[in-house]
Amino acid sequence: MTSGAVPPTNPHAVVSTTGPVLIVGTGLLGTSLALALTAAGVEVQLEDTSPTSLALARDMGAGRVRGASSPEPRLVVVATPPDVAADVVLRSLDAHPGAVVTDVASVKDRVRAEVLAHAGEHARRYVGSHPMAGRERSGAAAADSDLFVGRPWVIVAEGAGPDAELAVRNLAVDVGATPIRMGATEHDAAVAAVSHLPQLMSSLLAARLETLPESALALAGQGLRDTTRIAASDPRLWAAILVGNAGPVCELLRQVRGDLDTLIRGVEQVALDPDGEQYAAHGGVETIAPGAVGAVVDVMGRGNAGRARIPGKHGGAPSRYAEVQVLVPDAAGSLGRLFSDVGEAGVNIEDFSMEHSAGQSVGVAVLSVVPSASQALEEALDARGWRVVVVG
Amino acid sequence: MTSGAVPPTNPHAVVSTTGPVLIVGTGLLGTSLALALTAAGVEVQLEDTSPTSLALARDMGAGRVRGASSPEPRLVVVATPPDVAADVVLRSLDAHPGAVVTDVASVKDRVRAEVLAHAGEHARRYVGSHPMAGRERSGAAAADSDLFVGRPWVIVAEGAGPDAELAVRNLAVDVGATPIRMGATEHDAAVAAVSHLPQLMSSLLAARLETLPESALALAGQGLRDTTRIAASDPRLWAAILVGNAGPVCELLRQVRGDLDTLIRGVEQVALDPDGEQYAAHGGVETIAPGAVGAVVDVMGRGNAGRARIPGKHGGAPSRYAEVQVLVPDAAGSLGRLFSDVGEAGVNIEDFSMEHSAGQSVGVAVLSVVPSASQALEEALDARGWRVVVVG
Repeated sequence: MTSGAVPPTNPHAVVSTTGPVLIVGTGLLGTSLALALTAAGVEVQLEDTSPTSLALARDMGAGRVRGASSPEPRLVVVATPPDVAADVVLRSLDAHPGAVVTDVASVKDRVRAEVLAHAGEHARRYVGSHPMAGRERSGAAAADSDLFVGRPWVIVAEGAGPDAELAVRNLAVDVGATPIRMGATEHDAAVAAVSHLPQLMSSLLAARLETLPESALALAGQGLRDTTRIAASDPRLWAAILVGNAGPVCELLRQVRGDLDTLIRGVEQVALDPDGEQYAAHGGVETIAPGAVGAVVDVMGRGNAGRARIPGKHGGAPSRYAEVQVLVPDAAGSLGRLFSDVGEAGVNIEDFSMEHSAGQSVGVAVLSVVPSASQALEEALDARGWRVVVVG
Repeated sequence: MTSGAVPPTNPHAVVSTTGPVLIVGTGLLGTSLALALTAAGVEVQLEDTSPTSLALARDMGAGRVRGASSPEPRLVVVATPPDVAADVVLRSLDAHPGAVVTDVASVKDRVRAEVLAHAGEHARRYVGSHPMAGRERSGAAAADSDLFVGRPWVIVAEGAGPDAELAVRNLAVDVGATPIRMGATEHDAAVAAVSHLPQLMSSLLAARLETLPESALALAGQGLRDTTRIAASDPRLWAAILVGNAGPVCELLRQVRGDLDTLIRGVEQVALDPDGEQYAAHGGVETIAPGAVGAVVDVMGRGNAGRARIPGKHGGAPSRYAEVQVLVPDAAGSLGRLFSDVGEAGVNIEDFSMEHSAGQSVGVAVLSVVPSASQALEEALDARGWRVVVVG
């Protein structure tokens, strides 16, 4: 009822990868890769130390279980937990002397160092990979052939021959990913900041909820949900990743602790004054507790700046535009009049959004323009009778 | 073109609130409240120390600017930053002797204490509120009349008369919120954990991105985006909130620091061994670096537990069901056969989802059942030839 299904080939995909491709490790990444390649018509072989996982991936249509009579693979993808990746890479280089070997571990420096230390000339057939794709759910059952589409795929090709690098680059492109070439050290520092530290911060935060009263949890909003979503990740898998990137991760944790210490020192001054005499003064909080306020504003201001540097969802540059906000009545023709007047003002609109909810008769149009043009646009619209929102 | 618009009344809303309602403070919350009330046909008056903000709220249709000849309000909502809320509450109790007065500050203990200390008998007309609603964007221009729909609205009624409490409860319900009665101290401890600490953790994390190379930022994924979304919040507004809840916030920050210290101590052991001799052993990471692994697994395990306690998005209990996963071929009738066999097994399905992406010939059906029934269901389906996924 469920095994032996012939997966359809994707008639639209043009792929460079020539099989067979051997996938070692049928977890989320390995199985997703296998599914994607199989769908594109590439011959896939599967290996895993767990017979259960292996059988599941096979039954999902990811490929055939590699056996004694299977043809030699041209490409081997090691998709094991990172702590055993180097080991499996070395064994694969040895067992398949004609194959290019890559791994998908989240840490590249240690894996690469170990492979180079033991593989001799064979290391030219090894290229490190890191597809930046994933989900909180792990295991073959959560696999998705579209997992890599649009995602970055880091390629660490130091020490590898050009054919090997090309084979891995083609693999990435064939499954819909965007190849990005980086050094091993550069990669590890990067993922420490954009992947490993977020995981730990989410877990540290969520751990505070373990003993919280249910009445408090009832007040949970989207902010809490978003900051703790990835706290559902698998601890053992992440322990292997984090320990494998201990240096960069430790450095970031220490920097966070420094900021945290400053915050605590600032806030506890106020906490130690429970009668709130300080707080009751009429000057507002800046005059009452400047140390505490300063500490919070400093960290949050740097958080604002850091957040603004994250690229737009589709890889574009973060917004470097100024926003001009204008009230727009909910009447036919209003938006048309607005854009007409904007056109007359001669300012190019880079992006546009409307803030409007049902039942309101006035919406707020948000026009994104290059910063140097914002003042001219505000003045032009004001002169034409539009109500421009002055922010701040 | 933009002012003087007559907002439509909502013909479907039945409201208890009798106007006039005076909103003091035309920021995000105050203006959203004003818009919601106005849409429901309640007379709304507006006050704000900023003429710009006041005019904007008026022009958006939130209400009329309160003047010397305006009728006395029956209800006053103080929607100022929390550090001046008590002050404005006291002045409102004094200026409007017939009105119930409430505030929407995110911290209730200090505000309440100050009001009770200075208001004498008038304190019976004061009820603390905290509508648990918001956005990273602040100010009147970001206001939304639907902001409170479905959200909790905490009511702190200690020391207030029953009429005052009822008036505020009706206000909450009239704008679509769910009233929740709490004590002031209970409230402050709750929001410290579900709102204030998440804000700080997000900012601490995002601050690390401030000086990160752009090549590293290019690897950003959804995990980073989710954990840093609220890092875009306004620092000055939050400084007032956090300082006003310094005690509970400080306690949580110290607990986080404790976990962080343990993490650092665990991970730095490995970081101090750069040659990776430890890491190269063949036993996997648990045998190599048990201290580091233990520290990470401990925090992340507690994070898993904490995260699982957050209620479902629509207020339901977090899932307490077991999941049975079954492979389902992508062929007509498969799902029907599955549910038929499930029915024969006599097990009730509490929830169901399908994991399936285009191009795969097999999907994974996830059946949620009460934990005590999961084994029986697995065995029954297995006996009927279904491929049951064994997790772990």
